[in-house]
Amino acid sequence: MPTTQRTELNQLGEFGLIDRIKQPFEQKQHTETRKGIGDDAAVIDYGQDFYTLHSTDLLIEGVHFDLSYMPLKYLGYKAVAVNVSDIAAMNGIPQQILVSIAVSNRFSVEAIDEIYEGIAEACQNYRLDLIGGDTTTSRAGLVLNISIIGKVKKNKITYRSGARENDILCVTGDLGAAYLGLQILEREKQVFLANPHAEPQLEGKDYIVQKQLKPEARTDIVYELDELGIIPTAMIDISDGLASEILHLCKQSNVGAVIFEDKLPIEDISWLTAQELNLPIMTCALNGGEDYELLFSIAQKDFEKVNKIADVSPIGYITSADKKATLRTKSGTVYPLEAQGWKHF
Amino acid sequence: MPTTQRTELNQLGEFGLIDRIKQPFEQKQHTETRKGIGDDAAVIDYGQDFYTLHSTDLLIEGVHFDLSYMPLKYLGYKAVAVNVSDIAAMNGIPQQILVSIAVSNRFSVEAIDEIYEGIAEACQNYRLDLIGGDTTTSRAGLVLNISIIGKVKKNKITYRSGARENDILCVTGDLGAAYLGLQILEREKQVFLANPHAEPQLEGKDYIVQKQLKPEARTDIVYELDELGIIPTAMIDISDGLASEILHLCKQSNVGAVIFEDKLPIEDISWLTAQELNLPIMTCALNGGEDYELLFSIAQKDFEKVNKIADVSPIGYITSADKKATLRTKSGTVYPLEAQGWKHF
Repeated sequence: MPTTQRTELNQLGEFGLIDRIKQPFEQKQHTETRKGIGDDAAVIDYGQDFYTLHSTDLLIEGVHFDLSYMPLKYLGYKAVAVNVSDIAAMNGIPQQILVSIAVSNRFSVEAIDEIYEGIAEACQNYRLDLIGGDTTTSRAGLVLNISIIGKVKKNKITYRSGARENDILCVTGDLGAAYLGLQILEREKQVFLANPHAEPQLEGKDYIVQKQLKPEARTDIVYELDELGIIPTAMIDISDGLASEILHLCKQSNVGAVIFEDKLPIEDISWLTAQELNLPIMTCALNGGEDYELLFSIAQKDFEKVNKIADVSPIGYITSADKKATLRTKSGTVYPLEAQGWKHF
Repeated sequence: MPTTQRTELNQLGEFGLIDRIKQPFEQKQHTETRKGIGDDAAVIDYGQDFYTLHSTDLLIEGVHFDLSYMPLKYLGYKAVAVNVSDIAAMNGIPQQILVSIAVSNRFSVEAIDEIYEGIAEACQNYRLDLIGGDTTTSRAGLVLNISIIGKVKKNKITYRSGARENDILCVTGDLGAAYLGLQILEREKQVFLANPHAEPQLEGKDYIVQKQLKPEARTDIVYELDELGIIPTAMIDISDGLASEILHLCKQSNVGAVIFEDKLPIEDISWLTAQELNLPIMTCALNGGEDYELLFSIAQKDFEKVNKIADVSPIGYITSADKKATLRTKSGTVYPLEAQGWKHF
């Protein structure tokens, strides 16, 4: 590879790399292509009353999952759920998936069966048809890529870019649990490596471990919003941590936001576990990642309605862009939100 | 992974594994899903006069490509072309792709630019919009997954299953060149490894090396067939070798076939290279793989018309299923066709 210049990937980071990649592809060749890179899913318009939605996720062993504690069945389930989450974030409903898998001969046929059992369970839960894929060999670890196809009525599609000043910011479920579940699993792995006869200390940790190993996409919220007649003004799924997603939403909507520390939904077990592990709970909640909850903004008129959804918490509101994105603590101190995203490179 | 039974992947092979995987997913949940696993692309019917087509391909460094002789730009181009080929095999036209990529920090930003330059060139040539993807890190080699979306008029869709007795079997382009190109590249790699100062011996091999490194999908033939008013009765792309694809087509159409050794289109440079490398040219042509040409059957009434396409060769005809799939040599001997496919596991 004789290139005169060498720029390291970590100089750009993931989002910098995506910005660089997408530039030459911004000019579209097909009128059907309505939205390309830059939201949770791409959008195609075949001229009917709905759009089709398209997203894809690549999972690599040793980067996204560790088979020493990730059961293969859960891995299959999670791989589907994280894709479903991208469709939900467009206010859409998923319908079909394609699954590419690469395995080495250290995997048996039965091991592959387990992965597909998890995929089948997710297909059942989210009402998906598995319509295609690719199976191949890997020299090293397991590789899974899932592509998903969904639909959304044109008048209900929700982009990242629609948030307006004074809209209310909401999140589903709770924050930080998946990250803390991962820390517990990593701790137990180290204990096990040091002493294979040690009993794993997972008592009482079911919730956070489950959030890490077998997260659910919030299509239930998409249905609830629809029933209540609420169309969010903007929406994004929380995969890289709340702070990072708020910054995406603010950037693309050209707004700012303020969120309140004491409004962030955090489960007791997450507080306790953070304490036990000596981790600042706010960092877990803001930057933990892998929550797969939804972050969305709604017009103030919908505030009463959204309160009827048990599993949604208002956490702040949208401001003008010059106010930036900030966190206000209980004591009234204001901090700028900072994206961690992942910087694996 | 405490499983009581362990069946090795090589006991099943790729096609056995696919058969096993697809069974639990045959019941469809959405009326839009018209065709799932089992053809070159999946088919969705959104109730208009066309179907959408969906396919995906996973490419792994060290399995599908070797960066010691595969330029990154060509890799990007080829990754797109092999997906386009799947859409062409349904008699369809591709429109959009999603690209997932995993790289380690041994790759520079400039190296990734080269991959996307190849992707962009392919998008230009095949008129594709890149609408999404995923970028992530890899602990080991480069991983590329492309998903493609195409369209085909309902009355023109071509499945593997439509071949009928007495139809004529045709192939586009020529056979075996990509495989022989790979053998030459492998030979030169070994020479280079033994003596880094040796000059690579690629003179006169441009065509076969190009077929391996930068194959083209035959959308041109899809357009030509359309212009001539020919709808193939069945079609498949030649990725695993002609013999394997004929067997797929025969199985799914419930027919047999006979092809004639002296009708197989093979370039002079392929003959010469096979001789030079001491490889039986017929094995290269029948089982070489990666030709990315189209194999299709047409009704006899279309025979005169298809002869107008310069780059299409009739190679035999469809028989009843009990005759199986056979090759007839110049001397009149008849051999059963055998699938090699790949058996990497």
